[in-house]
Amino acid sequence: MTIKLYELAGAEDDRRFSPYCWRIRFALEHKQIDFEPMVCRFTDKDVIAFSGQDKVPVLVDGDKVVSDSWAIACYLEQAYPDRPSLFGGSAGQALSRFYMDWTDTVLHGTLIRLLASDIHAHLHEKDKDYFRESREKRFGTTLEEFCCNQEQSLRDLKRILTPLRRTLQSQPYLGGDAPLYADYAVMGAFMWARSVSQVALLEPSDPVALWRGRLLSRLGEEAIRFKAYG
Amino acid sequence: MTIKLYELAGAEDDRRFSPYCWRIRFALEHKQIDFEPMVCRFTDKDVIAFSGQDKVPVLVDGDKVVSDSWAIACYLEQAYPDRPSLFGGSAGQALSRFYMDWTDTVLHGTLIRLLASDIHAHLHEKDKDYFRESREKRFGTTLEEFCCNQEQSLRDLKRILTPLRRTLQSQPYLGGDAPLYADYAVMGAFMWARSVSQVALLEPSDPVALWRGRLLSRLGEEAIRFKAYG
Repeated sequence: MTIKLYELAGAEDDRRFSPYCWRIRFALEHKQIDFEPMVCRFTDKDVIAFSGQDKVPVLVDGDKVVSDSWAIACYLEQAYPDRPSLFGGSAGQALSRFYMDWTDTVLHGTLIRLLASDIHAHLHEKDKDYFRESREKRFGTTLEEFCCNQEQSLRDLKRILTPLRRTLQSQPYLGGDAPLYADYAVMGAFMWARSVSQVALLEPSDPVALWRGRLLSRLGEEAIRFKAYG
Repeated sequence: MTIKLYELAGAEDDRRFSPYCWRIRFALEHKQIDFEPMVCRFTDKDVIAFSGQDKVPVLVDGDKVVSDSWAIACYLEQAYPDRPSLFGGSAGQALSRFYMDWTDTVLHGTLIRLLASDIHAHLHEKDKDYFRESREKRFGTTLEEFCCNQEQSLRDLKRILTPLRRTLQSQPYLGGDAPLYADYAVMGAFMWARSVSQVALLEPSDPVALWRGRLLSRLGEEAIRFKAYG
């Protein structure tokens, strides 16, 4: 039975912007597991209600329903041990967690000031009010006001990428010579950005940009067939 | 032949404050390797001149001389493969690098505003001028001015520890159920702080404080026999 992955889409079905869903796309590609993508929107809560919660990604593998990108990655690692490992062992699995936590807090927290308004512009009509209201409540201001200082946000991004840049000056991937889930946890953020924003976030010679390019090439056709910029 | 570890000391021989040297102390304890500590000061460049560079830690193992804490950790892992692993495999080794880079840039960069003046106060007389001059040149201001806003620096510390706190809410160590080199890379910074500063950096209930306490207990007598606060 084919695995199903419920993913967030924008106005068009092939505009996939959720950083958490991209982590799992990369993980499935890494494990060479075919899957059927199931599109849903922010307000399609009924579509994934069977998962007992309201957030994507949701993975359905036969009888098994798993939500939360980290839980899905751990599930795939355990359920498909004969496929290439996402973590490189139990130590690698434990050590991957901080990459996710750093991305979810520091990297996403910085990028959202560059992306929130662009995300809104690329949403399906039925999601626009929900997104604006929920985010403006969270940010305590309008989307436009929240994203108004692009130059400062780009400077912040450059600064917070310092440790990542340093690591990627020493090795091609966070996982070493080949990517691991830690790479995908961080890369999801850049897939999120490229799906909605035309802003050049990185200088082309930045080791982070070169790493991003290497990961995009690995994704091959997957990266090209979805609507995105850059 | 006993391994020798050249370490930085303060006014007293048993005030060891270098975060990089502490990483190697933890690593040697982890690998259950006995060693002879060799004390030197910032201005004792001649003492470690044989290493071909001027920074501690320097490890001497028979004919082998290794400097730089990361290089030393990798050397110990390779030279003593029958002892407990510092990385948990090659993926774990690659994934440990970002912990070091994050600590060296983000954590040290934040802590130095809380510690620089206290470090100076605990230095050997012969190091004081060197430290003040080199650091004031680097900071572009006096040590006292650089460290004058303790409240802001404590707020910054609390904020930048967000991803670490989140990871340590989910697992007892960065390495999982037991510590790995990634833990020691970060913990070195807290050993540095505790060797010179009386300021309470963490709230007692902070998961980072609880993790710090667990690592201190593992060090046992080592932690107690050196001069430190808290």
